[in-house]
Amino acid sequence: AQLVGADNPGQIGSYNGLAVTPAMGWDNWNAFGCDVSEDLLLGTAQKIVDVGLRDLGYNYVILDDCYSDGRYPNGTIKPNFQKFPNGFKHVSDRLHALGLKYGMYSSAGYLTCGRYTASLGREMTDAQTFADWGVDFLKYDNCYNGGQSGTAQISYTRYKAMSDALNATGRPILYNMCSWGDDGPWNWAQTMANSWRMSGDVYDSFSRPDERCPCTGDEPGYLCALPGFHCSILNIMNKMAKIVSKTQTGAQNDMDALEVGNGGMTDDEYLTHMSMWTLEASQLVMGTDIRSLDPSAYSILANPAVLALNQDPAVSAGARRWIHQVADKDENDAGNIQLWARTMNNTDAVIALVNAGNTLRDMNATLADIFFDQGGVISPQARQGWDIYDLWANRMDNETASSILNGTAPAIISVDDMLNQTTRWNVSMMSYAEGLNANASALFGKMIGSVDALGTVTAKNVSRHGVALYRLRANGKGMSKLDARDEL
Amino acid sequence: AQLVGADNPGQIGSYNGLAVTPAMGWDNWNAFGCDVSEDLLLGTAQKIVDVGLRDLGYNYVILDDCYSDGRYPNGTIKPNFQKFPNGFKHVSDRLHALGLKYGMYSSAGYLTCGRYTASLGREMTDAQTFADWGVDFLKYDNCYNGGQSGTAQISYTRYKAMSDALNATGRPILYNMCSWGDDGPWNWAQTMANSWRMSGDVYDSFSRPDERCPCTGDEPGYLCALPGFHCSILNIMNKMAKIVSKTQTGAQNDMDALEVGNGGMTDDEYLTHMSMWTLEASQLVMGTDIRSLDPSAYSILANPAVLALNQDPAVSAGARRWIHQVADKDENDAGNIQLWARTMNNTDAVIALVNAGNTLRDMNATLADIFFDQGGVISPQARQGWDIYDLWANRMDNETASSILNGTAPAIISVDDMLNQTTRWNVSMMSYAEGLNANASALFGKMIGSVDALGTVTAKNVSRHGVALYRLRANGKGMSKLDARDEL
Amino acid sequence: AQLVGADNPGQIGSYNGLAVTPAMGWDNWNAFGCDVSEDLLLGTAQKIVDVGLRDLGYNYVILDDCYSDGRYPNGTIKPNFQKFPNGFKHVSDRLHALGLKYGMYSSAGYLTCGRYTASLGREMTDAQTFADWGVDFLKYDNCYNGGQSGTAQISYTRYKAMSDALNATGRPILYNMCSWGDDGPWNWAQTMANSWRMSGDVYDSFSRPDERCPCTGDEPGYLCALPGFHCSILNIMNKMAKIVSKTQTGAQNDMDALEVGNGGMTDDEYLTHMSMWTLEASQLVMGTDIRSLDPSAYSILANPAVLALNQDPAVSAGARRWIHQVADKDENDAGNIQLWARTMNNTDAVIALVNAGNTLRDMNATLADIFFDQGGVISPQARQGWDIYDLWANRMDNETASSILNGTAPAIISVDDMLNQTTRWNVSMMSYAEGLNANASALFGKMIGSVDALGTVTAKNVSRHGVALYRLRANGKGMSKLDARDEL
Amino acid sequence: AQLVGADNPGQIGSYNGLAVTPAMGWDNWNAFGCDVSEDLLLGTAQKIVDVGLRDLGYNYVILDDCYSDGRYPNGTIKPNFQKFPNGFKHVSDRLHALGLKYGMYSSAGYLTCGRYTASLGREMTDAQTFADWGVDFLKYDNCYNGGQSGTAQISYTRYKAMSDALNATGRPILYNMCSWGDDGPWNWAQTMANSWRMSGDVYDSFSRPDERCPCTGDEPGYLCALPGFHCSILNIMNKMAKIVSKTQTGAQNDMDALEVGNGGMTDDEYLTHMSMWTLEASQLVMGTDIRSLDPSAYSILANPAVLALNQDPAVSAGARRWIHQVADKDENDAGNIQLWARTMNNTDAVIALVNAGNTLRDMNATLADIFFDQGGVISPQARQGWDIYDLWANRMDNETASSILNGTAPAIISVDDMLNQTTRWNVSMMSYAEGLNANASALFGKMIGSVDALGTVTAKNVSRHGVALYRLRANGKGMSKLDARDEL
Repeated sequence: AQLVGADNPGQIGSYNGLAVTPAMGWDNWNAFGCDVSEDLLLGTAQKIVDVGLRDLGYNYVILDDCYSDGRYPNGTIKPNFQKFPNGFKHVSDRLHALGLKYGMYSSAGYLTCGRYTASLGREMTDAQTFADWGVDFLKYDNCYNGGQSGTAQISYTRYKAMSDALNATGRPILYNMCSWGDDGPWNWAQTMANSWRMSGDVYDSFSRPDERCPCTGDEPGYLCALPGFHCSILNIMNKMAKIVSKTQTGAQNDMDALEVGNGGMTDDEYLTHMSMWTLEASQLVMGTDIRSLDPSAYSILANPAVLALNQDPAVSAGARRWIHQVADKDENDAGNIQLWARTMNNTDAVIALVNAGNTLRDMNATLADIFFDQGGVISPQARQGWDIYDLWANRMDNETASSILNGTAPAIISVDDMLNQTTRWNVSMMSYAEGLNANASALFGKMIGSVDALGTVTAKNVSRHGVALYRLRANGKGMSKLDARDEL
Repeated sequence: AQLVGADNPGQIGSYNGLAVTPAMGWDNWNAFGCDVSEDLLLGTAQKIVDVGLRDLGYNYVILDDCYSDGRYPNGTIKPNFQKFPNGFKHVSDRLHALGLKYGMYSSAGYLTCGRYTASLGREMTDAQTFADWGVDFLKYDNCYNGGQSGTAQISYTRYKAMSDALNATGRPILYNMCSWGDDGPWNWAQTMANSWRMSGDVYDSFSRPDERCPCTGDEPGYLCALPGFHCSILNIMNKMAKIVSKTQTGAQNDMDALEVGNGGMTDDEYLTHMSMWTLEASQLVMGTDIRSLDPSAYSILANPAVLALNQDPAVSAGARRWIHQVADKDENDAGNIQLWARTMNNTDAVIALVNAGNTLRDMNATLADIFFDQGGVISPQARQGWDIYDLWANRMDNETASSILNGTAPAIISVDDMLNQTTRWNVSMMSYAEGLNANASALFGKMIGSVDALGTVTAKNVSRHGVALYRLRANGKGMSKLDARDEL
Repeated sequence: AQLVGADNPGQIGSYNGLAVTPAMGWDNWNAFGCDVSEDLLLGTAQKIVDVGLRDLGYNYVILDDCYSDGRYPNGTIKPNFQKFPNGFKHVSDRLHALGLKYGMYSSAGYLTCGRYTASLGREMTDAQTFADWGVDFLKYDNCYNGGQSGTAQISYTRYKAMSDALNATGRPILYNMCSWGDDGPWNWAQTMANSWRMSGDVYDSFSRPDERCPCTGDEPGYLCALPGFHCSILNIMNKMAKIVSKTQTGAQNDMDALEVGNGGMTDDEYLTHMSMWTLEASQLVMGTDIRSLDPSAYSILANPAVLALNQDPAVSAGARRWIHQVADKDENDAGNIQLWARTMNNTDAVIALVNAGNTLRDMNATLADIFFDQGGVISPQARQGWDIYDLWANRMDNETASSILNGTAPAIISVDDMLNQTTRWNVSMMSYAEGLNANASALFGKMIGSVDALGTVTAKNVSRHGVALYRLRANGKGMSKLDARDEL
Repeated sequence: AQLVGADNPGQIGSYNGLAVTPAMGWDNWNAFGCDVSEDLLLGTAQKIVDVGLRDLGYNYVILDDCYSDGRYPNGTIKPNFQKFPNGFKHVSDRLHALGLKYGMYSSAGYLTCGRYTASLGREMTDAQTFADWGVDFLKYDNCYNGGQSGTAQISYTRYKAMSDALNATGRPILYNMCSWGDDGPWNWAQTMANSWRMSGDVYDSFSRPDERCPCTGDEPGYLCALPGFHCSILNIMNKMAKIVSKTQTGAQNDMDALEVGNGGMTDDEYLTHMSMWTLEASQLVMGTDIRSLDPSAYSILANPAVLALNQDPAVSAGARRWIHQVADKDENDAGNIQLWARTMNNTDAVIALVNAGNTLRDMNATLADIFFDQGGVISPQARQGWDIYDLWANRMDNETASSILNGTAPAIISVDDMLNQTTRWNVSMMSYAEGLNANASALFGKMIGSVDALGTVTAKNVSRHGVALYRLRANGKGMSKLDARDEL
């Protein structure tokens, strides 16, 4: 049988109690690479708090590669004191004081990808060091792995060593495997990690193929011997389509950190990127310079209706219902349209109509297709009416976003305030789950129409490389008992 | 040399004496998933008996995933007493009292697919528990397998542990590996299991590709790193075509439980589905709600002529002689025609002409193609005449089926009665093998014509997505000694 | 660097001194399958002697699968005394008395392919039994291998166990691995075996694809997870083209036993089959009923000029210089033309122009293409003239062949007799190597023309599915010192 | 994250301090195969010195396969005294006396490719022998490897044994793995070797596919089970494009020895071959007969501007920015154009515009494409002007080259002399790194134009199978602060 997700949970959810819903946070790699420092981390952390991103749920601040200066004689990691003059316990304390959590990085290899000291064969020592430093999250990479790969068994053994070491510390540390899909972690990582990268590294391009990311997801069974990097949004989406069933409560496919804000894509492309990462229940890790954030990027990252989708208690990844090639190819020779669909905890459905063609178009999705997993045309879901909510309709305008970013806009003052508007949220006042139960308007976008039983949802004027991200809510109309099957 | 099947058996048939012919029964997963209970099982079992399905050979009632509630302190599986208030020994006793056999489920992993307790590393304990509960059949899944895969050797070792544990109990328990074809069990499972799944999970669609079932069978050597689920009938047939030689007495490729009755396919499609599972000697496990069975589904599942084909003593899987693409594609862009052929224990041949095109058509099969394995045009078989029997011709009408389903039709009263009609059978009175030897009319469908030596079998008006399932019986006409080869 | 063949041998040729040139003989499988007996073996052996096939070099008589009846209490193999009433030592003695060698069969698995007792885990016992029985050749199959495959290392270890066991007996036993190419034996078997099957089983068809032989050789790096059987001549040729460099003195790719004489192919197709197996230095194992051999099959199997090619002391496999698709496709949708070339010990070249199109055609091969490995257009070989010999030109006529087969034609009486005719040979009087050195006319076919330096060899009227098999001999004309490179 | 190269080094560069920049030298295999001798080596060495190739950096003289004559009773390798009458310590001493380094060869197998004694299982003994002989470089092949392959882990273990053995000798020995890309050494070899072959053997053809080199680099993730040999320049380039990020300081992808001078390619093709090996930071090992070197080959091998590119301190391999098929196919049905780009240590960029079409053409590269990795159109690099230098413009004329080769031309006398001309260099006077810092004219080719910010570099009249190899130097013009992103 297939894996059963959150809709039918057995006794065990997350293996360590973490990442029950996908993690949210920030990581320096996409924007800064090896250029790390205490100033960068703490400055970013302060900004995350100031502009309300922490309160939207982005609470992990993750220090990526290139932070160390070898090891002490006793074998423990020595910080690079040029970059981190006060060491990492200090960083950790400051982050915790800001209500944030602290993430760090290492590699299941002899060196990190940046050729710094790494943890293969030193798992117990390093896990304890991380715990001593107050670390809450470990991104664990795959470089220089001493050839310990080639079968699921070999990779499992290597990554399990750190899982056991983290558990042995007694400190809850979210375990994010960054093994790029090597040896198919979606088949085996759920019982010992919270998330696992399912592709080579993302880069800031919507559709450009790059030979350094040679796999496309159309390999037989998506078996990729060379995950590489410079993988586009469309590339990662295509891989994800094969393995959506593997994401669940406590254990998610990680599509890599977000590129929103880094400038390589258009606003429409970033909207699609954010929509798909969200719909797929990937962890949402911002990857841009928060201290100089664009208003337009902010309004993408900070949309409560979209984040509530990602944080839905029924953790699962939307399935691609169809992909069709179209004639209007872009400069990278890409051109297709796609329908993705997911069922939410409250029985709503969310769909993404992705226009990866090169021209604006109207797009259609039948209820039979949307609810194919439920039985399609014979499903009760296809045989009733639905109201349609556009999750991006209430996107914050640039003026408001700018005022928040420059500190002139007020924060949310009270729960009442929060429940009476459409563009802000504070998870410390009310979780997304509670807000969804309360039908909070900020979490549902804007109703833009409805569809009759067995009807078709139409999205008008979907931009080139853009998306329509709609939430469908049953409206009780047109519900009909399923007729005799022989009429089909 | 290739594997030798039932036609030339060596000393050893079934490794444990079970599944000499393919198992038949019912499993709750396809129709009910995790929604299991004592009521479901026993209610279904009673209905299986009442409507004569048990007497047709469907004798295994299999409880699938989601039945447990963790483990007792001593490490044995604890039943979920909400669902099974009297435990599993009670279920077992009741099934046995009904003349049925009891199947259960676990996974060769740390969790079942539904995230319940599973048996990896606990094989001896769990096998003994199953034996104590009176279990007769184990479906053993592949979820959360701790990465113990990647080579045949790794998967073999994992599945062999349960095989050994079952044997150690001393109780005959049919061992059904559900490893989805991972690491090619058709190459190695015959010496330690009775059947093995050869694909990701079937779903209730004839031809729709789904990205969550990414392999098609056309991979190099059908090597599939991601079996997935939502595999269509055509998808599984295409995979099966590569590995037909691996099925034999006591050890069969399992194409997954039947979808007949679940409503996602047309009647023609279900006929094709049933025909191919039968011809391929897959175990026949019903997967629908027997308590509310359609008459049309009943008459598919209960056709003695088709079941006798599946239960033929010369256990082998029909080989695809050809597949040709056609222009009339269906809505899933599928469109082809296929010929499959198999030789039976009594030297009859059975062919399936599958119309996977989108329109009704006449179809042809030459004797040279049907008997290609025997030498084609130079084979003795192609050089004689045959009578043609349509195995579906005597399909029960809906009125009769309804009367059986609602209990108003009488059961078979005597062997004489059975031998004098065309639509019913009772294996406790006479096995299919005996009936075939006795030329029982119910097991041969209806003669619809004949074909001369070196002639062509024509099936008229084969429906879109339908099948002609014909049994050919040598009629002694036209037999000619093979001429000198140089005339060819 | 690449493997170096016989042209540049290091210290070590054959690992055990056997198969210095490819083995020749007869195996019952292709024609008789499991229907084996002492009568079959000894009757065939006598006929092999009587019709001169032994004297042509076919000296191994190989008993394939299905000969045993379990094991004795002490664990040794028990003969099936119904089939072999006098046991195998008797068979061995009789074969040896006839001047033949005795081959037997087992499998590196828990069962043979016919489900008889096999040798995995019993290598030492069985090797000693074979030695005690006087066995000279072991065909060692791959069925029911307990999943001991998946990497080269796993397969190597399994097959090495029998290699070591055979060596430990002290008896020279030619070791023929029949692992169908699993895990790429061409990469590792040379140091512990004499030959290894490089494909699933051949069958008696020139070009028909069969899904049970799913690999074509065009997989990435010819990696085949399911070798299967029912592989056509063209299929095996296409696989062989990738691995020709792996064949050498003492260790050859085995393309499987011959189908010549079995009736499924035309005479032209059998000529091509025989030509390619010979050119490729595959072991030549007849696979038809010798007791009722067709004259036309005899004249294919018994052509000294072709056999001398196979037995050339410079053991190597011809390389495919080009393959081009053509428009005239046959009924299996196959249609191409191919050039293969090989250099012989005496500096002759042999080429095969294969017409796998559907119509008769003239075919051309430039010297530059033939000698591409030597430098093509700048090679000394392309820059001289050659005489052309057709190796099939002196094929024995059917009348003569019939008289040999029915015992009315005389055998070769003396070496002088042998050297003065064109259709017969006796290796006990003179080896092929000696005959080649002596320019014996029987070993060179018939001169049909010549080609100038930088010219083109043309074969007129090559039949559909036929071949021109030509030997090129330098004629000393037109040799020119290579001009300055800048004129190229 | 991806591997980080020289731009962001962590603490560790080369694992053993060698090959900080790619090795340069000469190996006998491509031109001489097994025909090795003391005379060949020492004669070649003297010539390398005499014609200034040593002073250009080609300092490793590597003796390839076929040098041994078994082993001494104590297990150490015995030289072939026919070929090397004075043994290898003598060869080593003579090479060292000439200011050269000594390379030798073995195989991680039971035999070398030429079937001579090899080092698998004898690593410690042989490494010490090599050290005793004064060896400075080991090419370690992959033939007859006993099946020790199939996963990265298996190959790693096998090659690590020799790495450890070399380290244990205490002598610095550059470790060049020649495992043909088996099991993906680019993923794991950096921590234990200095270079690793990433393809089957090169041969002297620009574009001809050969079935004995069956992989193309377009396999899923470039997974190649059969590297083979006879791989063309285009074939190896296509494979390299996938793994460029794996090359770094101290550890490089090895594209195999050069074919320049061997006569199978045109001058344009050799220029492209040399340009790409250089740009890719492959080790540069000459593979032709130096004693009879063509002037045109000399002027390719000896161009300081091109060698300085290869030896740039920022060791990395150029990335292919695009490849487009074109209609003008050559006789091998190849036809495409390619842009490759690399960033140098001094912030220059180098591009190669490869015309693998069949006709001369103008070629274009936009700055946005060249600097795509830096952000493309929004990168600072694309938003400034550059001067364009043609690295081949100052190629030595044939007359001068001839005079050097025949000893009539003077060597460089002084550093001043060297800095005042354009075609010669002497690394013992000044390293390439120093010369680049000093803007030495010999290392920068000839300025041929400039390109404005956001402009396009055009190469006029690029030959069939030729290349434009340009170095771009920022000229400080047109630099503009990046405008607001919303204008993009």
